[in-house]
Amino acid sequence: MKNSFGCSITVTLFGESHGAMIGAVVDGLAPGIKIKSEYIDKKLGQRRPSGIISTSRVEPDKYEIVSGVYNGYTTGTPLTVMIPNTNTKSSDYCELAERPRPSHADYTAGVKYGGFQDPRGGGHFSGRITAALVAVGAILSSALFDKGIKIGTHISTLGGIVDAPFSSYSDDIDSLSEKIFPVISDDSGAAMAEVIKDAAAVGDSVGGVLETVMIGIPAGVGEPWFDSVESQLSHIVFSVPGIKGVEFGAGFAIANMRGSEANDPLRVVDGQIVTTTNNSGGICGGITNGMPIIMRCAVKPTPSIFREQDTVDVAKMENATVTVKGRHDPAIIHRARAVVDAVCAIAVADMLTVRFGTDYLASGESK
Amino acid sequence: MKNSFGCSITVTLFGESHGAMIGAVVDGLAPGIKIKSEYIDKKLGQRRPSGIISTSRVEPDKYEIVSGVYNGYTTGTPLTVMIPNTNTKSSDYCELAERPRPSHADYTAGVKYGGFQDPRGGGHFSGRITAALVAVGAILSSALFDKGIKIGTHISTLGGIVDAPFSSYSDDIDSLSEKIFPVISDDSGAAMAEVIKDAAAVGDSVGGVLETVMIGIPAGVGEPWFDSVESQLSHIVFSVPGIKGVEFGAGFAIANMRGSEANDPLRVVDGQIVTTTNNSGGICGGITNGMPIIMRCAVKPTPSIFREQDTVDVAKMENATVTVKGRHDPAIIHRARAVVDAVCAIAVADMLTVRFGTDYLASGESK
Amino acid sequence: MKNSFGCSITVTLFGESHGAMIGAVVDGLAPGIKIKSEYIDKKLGQRRPSGIISTSRVEPDKYEIVSGVYNGYTTGTPLTVMIPNTNTKSSDYCELAERPRPSHADYTAGVKYGGFQDPRGGGHFSGRITAALVAVGAILSSALFDKGIKIGTHISTLGGIVDAPFSSYSDDIDSLSEKIFPVISDDSGAAMAEVIKDAAAVGDSVGGVLETVMIGIPAGVGEPWFDSVESQLSHIVFSVPGIKGVEFGAGFAIANMRGSEANDPLRVVDGQIVTTTNNSGGICGGITNGMPIIMRCAVKPTPSIFREQDTVDVAKMENATVTVKGRHDPAIIHRARAVVDAVCAIAVADMLTVRFGTDYLASGESK
Amino acid sequence: MKNSFGCSITVTLFGESHGAMIGAVVDGLAPGIKIKSEYIDKKLGQRRPSGIISTSRVEPDKYEIVSGVYNGYTTGTPLTVMIPNTNTKSSDYCELAERPRPSHADYTAGVKYGGFQDPRGGGHFSGRITAALVAVGAILSSALFDKGIKIGTHISTLGGIVDAPFSSYSDDIDSLSEKIFPVISDDSGAAMAEVIKDAAAVGDSVGGVLETVMIGIPAGVGEPWFDSVESQLSHIVFSVPGIKGVEFGAGFAIANMRGSEANDPLRVVDGQIVTTTNNSGGICGGITNGMPIIMRCAVKPTPSIFREQDTVDVAKMENATVTVKGRHDPAIIHRARAVVDAVCAIAVADMLTVRFGTDYLASGESK
Repeated sequence: MKNSFGCSITVTLFGESHGAMIGAVVDGLAPGIKIKSEYIDKKLGQRRPSGIISTSRVEPDKYEIVSGVYNGYTTGTPLTVMIPNTNTKSSDYCELAERPRPSHADYTAGVKYGGFQDPRGGGHFSGRITAALVAVGAILSSALFDKGIKIGTHISTLGGIVDAPFSSYSDDIDSLSEKIFPVISDDSGAAMAEVIKDAAAVGDSVGGVLETVMIGIPAGVGEPWFDSVESQLSHIVFSVPGIKGVEFGAGFAIANMRGSEANDPLRVVDGQIVTTTNNSGGICGGITNGMPIIMRCAVKPTPSIFREQDTVDVAKMENATVTVKGRHDPAIIHRARAVVDAVCAIAVADMLTVRFGTDYLASGESK
Repeated sequence: MKNSFGCSITVTLFGESHGAMIGAVVDGLAPGIKIKSEYIDKKLGQRRPSGIISTSRVEPDKYEIVSGVYNGYTTGTPLTVMIPNTNTKSSDYCELAERPRPSHADYTAGVKYGGFQDPRGGGHFSGRITAALVAVGAILSSALFDKGIKIGTHISTLGGIVDAPFSSYSDDIDSLSEKIFPVISDDSGAAMAEVIKDAAAVGDSVGGVLETVMIGIPAGVGEPWFDSVESQLSHIVFSVPGIKGVEFGAGFAIANMRGSEANDPLRVVDGQIVTTTNNSGGICGGITNGMPIIMRCAVKPTPSIFREQDTVDVAKMENATVTVKGRHDPAIIHRARAVVDAVCAIAVADMLTVRFGTDYLASGESK
Repeated sequence: MKNSFGCSITVTLFGESHGAMIGAVVDGLAPGIKIKSEYIDKKLGQRRPSGIISTSRVEPDKYEIVSGVYNGYTTGTPLTVMIPNTNTKSSDYCELAERPRPSHADYTAGVKYGGFQDPRGGGHFSGRITAALVAVGAILSSALFDKGIKIGTHISTLGGIVDAPFSSYSDDIDSLSEKIFPVISDDSGAAMAEVIKDAAAVGDSVGGVLETVMIGIPAGVGEPWFDSVESQLSHIVFSVPGIKGVEFGAGFAIANMRGSEANDPLRVVDGQIVTTTNNSGGICGGITNGMPIIMRCAVKPTPSIFREQDTVDVAKMENATVTVKGRHDPAIIHRARAVVDAVCAIAVADMLTVRFGTDYLASGESK
Repeated sequence: MKNSFGCSITVTLFGESHGAMIGAVVDGLAPGIKIKSEYIDKKLGQRRPSGIISTSRVEPDKYEIVSGVYNGYTTGTPLTVMIPNTNTKSSDYCELAERPRPSHADYTAGVKYGGFQDPRGGGHFSGRITAALVAVGAILSSALFDKGIKIGTHISTLGGIVDAPFSSYSDDIDSLSEKIFPVISDDSGAAMAEVIKDAAAVGDSVGGVLETVMIGIPAGVGEPWFDSVESQLSHIVFSVPGIKGVEFGAGFAIANMRGSEANDPLRVVDGQIVTTTNNSGGICGGITNGMPIIMRCAVKPTPSIFREQDTVDVAKMENATVTVKGRHDPAIIHRARAVVDAVCAIAVADMLTVRFGTDYLASGESK
């Protein structure tokens, strides 16, 4: 599947950072989903670099939906979103094909594609491609919202600063959705911003951990074994550049618990079956139990830093150095939030469509 | 795909814990892979419960290969392995359909399958099904070995005890492959065994973290975006029951590094391009860089514990308790090692076959 | 996908003619489908050789369902059906690996699998594997029946003899389902049997054309472009050994019509939208229109004939002859009927499950 | 998969006839395939309407490759081709949503998409989308040509006129590739053109049969059972609008042969194993035998005819009539040739890439 994901709803990505455009095709969307352009713009805005803690390359992200929408609603046939590249400075990147940047895809892409890949700006490996994911995710998450499903992500830790925990999932998700720097505690956010600025001041970068909550997903979704909810979510989350770890519920911490502590007791509350703890993160045996799905992912520090780094000259097969030019973020984690929200919406929408059929996400409005 | 995994090599699982048998079909195997039955037996032995730290249900795991092998070699057509269930005590489990065990699949399977699922012994959700994965993985890992690729896993932490790190990947993998309790340091292993016994003594259970190393995989394998090596490995690893976290390279720790620390410098050593650190875990941009692939996964404590636990009576929709009977391990992490080894072999074999064609794993012997 | 078919319902085939067994795994079945063993036996009986016009190898076809069924209903987890091979005479086939039978898979399998394939009785290419397809198809067609969907097939032509056309689809399907030699007109059937006997008398074989009708499938199922109903049905029908042509509605005859003759006018009849002709075979733009789906497929004469034929000695790379021994049918078309019915049921059940969700085929009985 | 096809090489279609553009994404292309724009233009020209026997809507088909190509070669990452729609007259089609044209997708799309589909010009069901298939197919067929594989199609019958048979596959394919009206005998072609003009004169349309030959494909490609070469080719060919039958080798005629006549004897000729007849059409047991693959498909007459036809008013649920306006071809079979060539190239390239790995179609030029 390579650049495609999903069974009933399939997303295919294309484009290079400095090519004509980047974009995505979404197949299998229910007909009749309303396209809310302000919401798409808002989510794109959350991914877009802004202010001191982001790159000076600011793309307008003027997306166009060139197929699959008619009179403001999805048609049910493939929806294609395109975002033209307008602000490219290719000369910044010319030498990177020969002298790959450490911990970038420069070297691995060179081996895989034999040198034919587009090296400009990271080409197809650029984080810029995630803008298309965000646009697609926005369409799906607004359709999920109409089904009572909400997805939200905050920076749970960054540089030793820990954000406040969720107090009310629903309210906190609403609140996060209005923030460019997604933290529950604005004090924590301010402290994190300082960490980023400190790193930027010395030409360095930072990573962090994102925590995502998905509420309203009914019990009984997902599959045993290979298509467990964890498998499907981790599959798409690990597609996002820079993610090096994914955990659900108590995650790695569960490894140090005893069973009596880790197990989530079941109770009847208000006529609903719930668990009183959620170490399982809403998933047992690969299948949702109706509790919030809790996921965290580790985002590595931006590999493009403004320091001379050791590398090799691939053609000459000798040691060399590289100094990254161009425009780069000292942190991308706040921007990655929009991407993680988006890919979770894609995976959840797909699972629900497999389970309940291809009309599931339809708005219920009739034509 | 549900109970199937893979593109060029596809594994399909079937069976219930207390049904006639469990098994797997593997499609897309190269013809001419030699079947080494002692090696399969050894790997099955590593998954099988044994000694004080495991359940008293000991299955002989007499597997049969009923298709796809002729004269000791794979034919290239689907290989089916079956393991009959012989030692079942169904009466132990009868009440679990009504009173689901906390953090088991009992409740979620009940919702998904409307009560039609086989509840005996966890049915299709039983860890017993992993025996078929181990048999399949053994066939693939021995074929990978002939291509210079080795995979090994140890318990890196359990109950606060930390195993020694790898000193030589190749030697340590060889050494681990001979151990039932897979640790690099036997002293650490002894301490871990004490932790397990302590938990068992009070009817409780423990989890832990497994660390897996895969060496010899060439650079340039994997895909950008949705079929990144991390995506494919995490997909199959999260299929293994009880895994709640997966990380690569520095994993979650990378979230606290700065870019200058996290980036892996490239160097030419002995005519090969290598990185001097491996925080990326052998994968950049979703594609292998030729360095060892490093993965860790969090294994939750066995949810079946011998204490009364809070649950619900699903039919009556009221609170209840459940006391698990039957035979259960106080720890399954050492047994999970064989499963993680197996699923990594499956994913790696599939990626290489996609990359290099359907004859890639053939032994090179001619018929 | 190779030996697997389907998106939401996936069938995986395995086994060799003279191995331990043949079988299939069906994943994605709705829970709660009742297993009707007499119906499965009846369909297997229609595939089984019988009487003068079939091979003297008669297998009892004692199938076993070894997973996925509990208390007589599907569980929703993979259903595995196995049919042991009991009546094998491998010595009959020993030389075929070196001297491939014309128009058999002997030669092509040898090239693809490098000689590692199981040559006995055609190995994995044997028509015997279709018994597993028939068992799976029987389970699905009885579930489809409960949804008001019926599938039936007759021999429309054989050796110049033409069967009567359908007069009432529903009644004729019922009637055909009781016949071993599936014709609408028994007089035509008797004439066809004579043609088969004549061919058998001179050690030769015959083929024919099967016509399949599927009624009760709602409008709006299928996909534009690559997963058109025709694409999905032809894909699985061309999997059946010996099929060399597939057509829908007027089929190849439509190529000689004018548009004014070929177009199916729409009318409202009894409050339903119907077409007054059905040259489209129930499918427009790849999507069902609610009319009966009409399909015909060409079955080639059994390639195993009792005459000396020209072949090559593959090892010596020189011309040779081969005389087929063993037990072979002078015609398999009447047996192929059960297989075509089965694969159509598989494809239709899959399309409906994709469209309406994974519970679609559930019986509606509650557990 | 819906609007996507292929395993190792995946093609995804998008667009509506009167939307902004139509296009396709091709994923899994080998890096280093040279893009030959004249060849793409030539194939697009063969699909484009021209002259008296085609519609008066002439699109310039100015395609743009907006991703996946760098410096004139494929990069190995998704290639996206777009063709803007410039010459649209939507008002011609406005009433068709309510009064579906007989044997068009108007009615079935309306049911499937609940009225949300784009009805203008057939929307996503328009034959115009095939222009993207032709562009993709041209890229792949020129890469296949460099591997010694050639694909060609002629109109074998139209309105009772039969074209000459192939005399030399290779030469005839070369010759056909230069013709807009693809026939081996130009006399036959002239007679066919008369048939088309006669139909056009009375506002009617004609269909025909296309015969495709593929040479140079090595033996041993394809799969037993579900991914037989016939299954994969028919799957994609039946995706082409208007195809109602597909056959291989002797096709439906084989149903009337005896085995002794139908079987293809094997011989050694010039050190190669060949068959002296080719009733199997180059495929045995689903796998290529190295002989030319022979396929024919039935193309129905264009359903848009200039006569009043019976239909229904869907909203009022009453009988009605429809008179198609707009610009339509009295025959599309000569244009369909380019599409059939293209989809065969796609399927063949995919099968070879699965078999031999993702670099198979690379040009061998090094970067």
